[in-house]
Amino acid sequence: MRMYDLIMKKRNGGTLSREEIEYMIAEYTAGRIPDYQMSAMMMAVYFRGMDPEETAALTMAMAHSGDMMDLSGIAGVKVDKHSTGGVGDKTSIALAPMAAACGVKIAKMSGRGLGHTGGTIDKLESFAGFDTGISEEHFIRQVNEIGLSIMGQTADVAPADKKLYALRDVTATVDNLSLIASSIMSKKLASGADAIVLDVKTGSGAFMKTEEDAFALAREMVTLGNRAGRKTIAVVSDMDQPLGRAVGNALEVKEAVATLRGEGPEDFTRLCKTLGTYMLVAGGAAEGEQEAERKIARAIEDGSALKKLAQFVEAQGGDPEMVYDTSRLPQASIIENIVSEREGYVEKIDCEEIGICSLLLGGGRETKESGIDLAVGLILHKKVGDYVKAGEPLAVIHANDRERLTMAKERFLGAYHFGDTPVQPNALIRGVVRE
Amino acid sequence: MRMYDLIMKKRNGGTLSREEIEYMIAEYTAGRIPDYQMSAMMMAVYFRGMDPEETAALTMAMAHSGDMMDLSGIAGVKVDKHSTGGVGDKTSIALAPMAAACGVKIAKMSGRGLGHTGGTIDKLESFAGFDTGISEEHFIRQVNEIGLSIMGQTADVAPADKKLYALRDVTATVDNLSLIASSIMSKKLASGADAIVLDVKTGSGAFMKTEEDAFALAREMVTLGNRAGRKTIAVVSDMDQPLGRAVGNALEVKEAVATLRGEGPEDFTRLCKTLGTYMLVAGGAAEGEQEAERKIARAIEDGSALKKLAQFVEAQGGDPEMVYDTSRLPQASIIENIVSEREGYVEKIDCEEIGICSLLLGGGRETKESGIDLAVGLILHKKVGDYVKAGEPLAVIHANDRERLTMAKERFLGAYHFGDTPVQPNALIRGVVRE
Repeated sequence: MRMYDLIMKKRNGGTLSREEIEYMIAEYTAGRIPDYQMSAMMMAVYFRGMDPEETAALTMAMAHSGDMMDLSGIAGVKVDKHSTGGVGDKTSIALAPMAAACGVKIAKMSGRGLGHTGGTIDKLESFAGFDTGISEEHFIRQVNEIGLSIMGQTADVAPADKKLYALRDVTATVDNLSLIASSIMSKKLASGADAIVLDVKTGSGAFMKTEEDAFALAREMVTLGNRAGRKTIAVVSDMDQPLGRAVGNALEVKEAVATLRGEGPEDFTRLCKTLGTYMLVAGGAAEGEQEAERKIARAIEDGSALKKLAQFVEAQGGDPEMVYDTSRLPQASIIENIVSEREGYVEKIDCEEIGICSLLLGGGRETKESGIDLAVGLILHKKVGDYVKAGEPLAVIHANDRERLTMAKERFLGAYHFGDTPVQPNALIRGVVRE
Repeated sequence: MRMYDLIMKKRNGGTLSREEIEYMIAEYTAGRIPDYQMSAMMMAVYFRGMDPEETAALTMAMAHSGDMMDLSGIAGVKVDKHSTGGVGDKTSIALAPMAAACGVKIAKMSGRGLGHTGGTIDKLESFAGFDTGISEEHFIRQVNEIGLSIMGQTADVAPADKKLYALRDVTATVDNLSLIASSIMSKKLASGADAIVLDVKTGSGAFMKTEEDAFALAREMVTLGNRAGRKTIAVVSDMDQPLGRAVGNALEVKEAVATLRGEGPEDFTRLCKTLGTYMLVAGGAAEGEQEAERKIARAIEDGSALKKLAQFVEAQGGDPEMVYDTSRLPQASIIENIVSEREGYVEKIDCEEIGICSLLLGGGRETKESGIDLAVGLILHKKVGDYVKAGEPLAVIHANDRERLTMAKERFLGAYHFGDTPVQPNALIRGVVRE
């Protein structure tokens, strides 16, 4: 088999066999197929696409390119959750303890990620002492004991995907549905959970700008998961404006804690409850959706969800008291209102721009090597549909540097668009895909 | 400017500006754009194409990526000739002396090439002592003195094309019209001639399998040449069966010599005369095509074309006596008839297979490092349309190794296809493109 022939075949609109895809991924991972051939292949795939069989073969080949996590040491159904990402997306931090408090087994690997804020792993480090570099043994024991652990992704989960994604990222071959779906699902499959709940974002702040594309990606991933024998459900949710009110690492942790107390923003709370419902059903912790909803509501009311977060933080070496007293989480030195210069209805909030404000403040990584400032960020007071008077605060900005604050503030004001007539925000939950 | 953005632009169907193409080629040649980005770009170009402005910009950028030959030291109009290649294509060896004998200045660089036989440079080395590695100074002086020199391509002619072609060759991105045309024309423009006559082959043995594609390539190249201020004409000619009767290095030289004596095969003679006509007109050595034809016919009749070849061979250190006594050219040790096993009309000769016979005998290079056997090859006695009886010779095979001979013979017989009804061979000259 020669990579040249496979490129030619795909270029000419042919279908690659499972054997051909396995050869391609194995040889590429081993460094025996050069990047320049793989990038030509990826561009050919961009134009020609891959059919469901090819996509499944690619996903499985990448999943098996490194270690397949063995979670058989954990009793019960292990449920994983994945979001395609957006601004203010702190879902895992509230959702995981919520579902674990209801009896779902959550053994989750998470990344640091490049972006407007850190990843879940970074956010969790807002709790002093929290260790995401725990051993696999610790990880499995902890899930057996308290039902929940989140660890940093080890290097050897789907190394083929890691290498291929890095190449796609610099050759303009990221945005192809089959490639996106197989990249996400290869890691999920290698991570070993029995069931997977996906949160596919749609809107201006999401990777999938249109609802149509988001549903297509959701269907693709659900099919891949179920083909691989993992019960997979996807929720398509809005990311046309930031989720919740907090953007920034420790600020998002505070919002997640508030949500576990039943005091979170309405949209974020609803998303957690919706995703939680499917996690409970998939994890066998509830008979049906209604029972699942009731159990989650109870776990919030009776404080067991919040307690589960404290247990989880403590089990990984973090300070559980910070869960109960969030004023002890990292705090910025400068806290200021950003006031509106205009009057009117908030018509649109440019999600990406809000993310860039967080990045400008130091809350995200620009390169893999950058450090991040956990304390900085924004709390939005006004969201789409709200009426604002001139001089009224749109948001509170948390900064540690006056110059960065000035830059972020200016950018922030440009991200808000006003109108004179009432505006209805988009529905938060756009739909559910269960195959 | 970032290569990533250029890939994205082309991928999405955009048009690259001259500045963008110049940046891309300069940075790629300097090694500051990696192969994996360029191969993704080439695949995007394969799918999206390039418009005439982009193609011209690419051609000029590649032409200027290395040395631009300065032929201003040669008085008069310098004419170059290029063939897209095929089996039995020894045209330059007969055509160059033919045109030079009529007063055209020919300063030609030629390659060794990978393929069924060697390139023009290899074939010329059949003359004992012939030196293709002459200095630029020698080259220019010789053209001024005798009107003709052919030297090996120096490494620094269009290095961008060299690097890009090598990449396209392993990433299935060769067969795009704009890329093929710019590759050929960048070298021709850098080689410095004032006028260029192109021989674009079409048919099963050519790179362009259909007449439509061959004309499209011809038009593309003629446009590129004329845009760059070089008078350019293309002849589209048949390569559905081997050209002439000889295939193999020294055997082709003998056939070229016979043609200069007026004793060559009809098809090959006609092609040389046709291309020669356009060279004379382009080079200002004749007023019009009729005068050009008459001059060429006279140069063959009066022996001046043959004498020009001898002069040329001698000027580059070769033995001119071999021109007059071709039995002194390299001779194979085994010479055998290949007889027909069937009776009928020759319906089709698989060109590529005949080429492979020459390669199997040792007449071509499989890798850049291979040596070649100048003596071996085939003389075809039957061509398309000829009637053959069983037991009658189809060809004479010249070999230096019995095992290779057996392999080649078997392959040869498979390349001939017979029918029971008379067959009309394709027209040799399919058309002329002059913009």
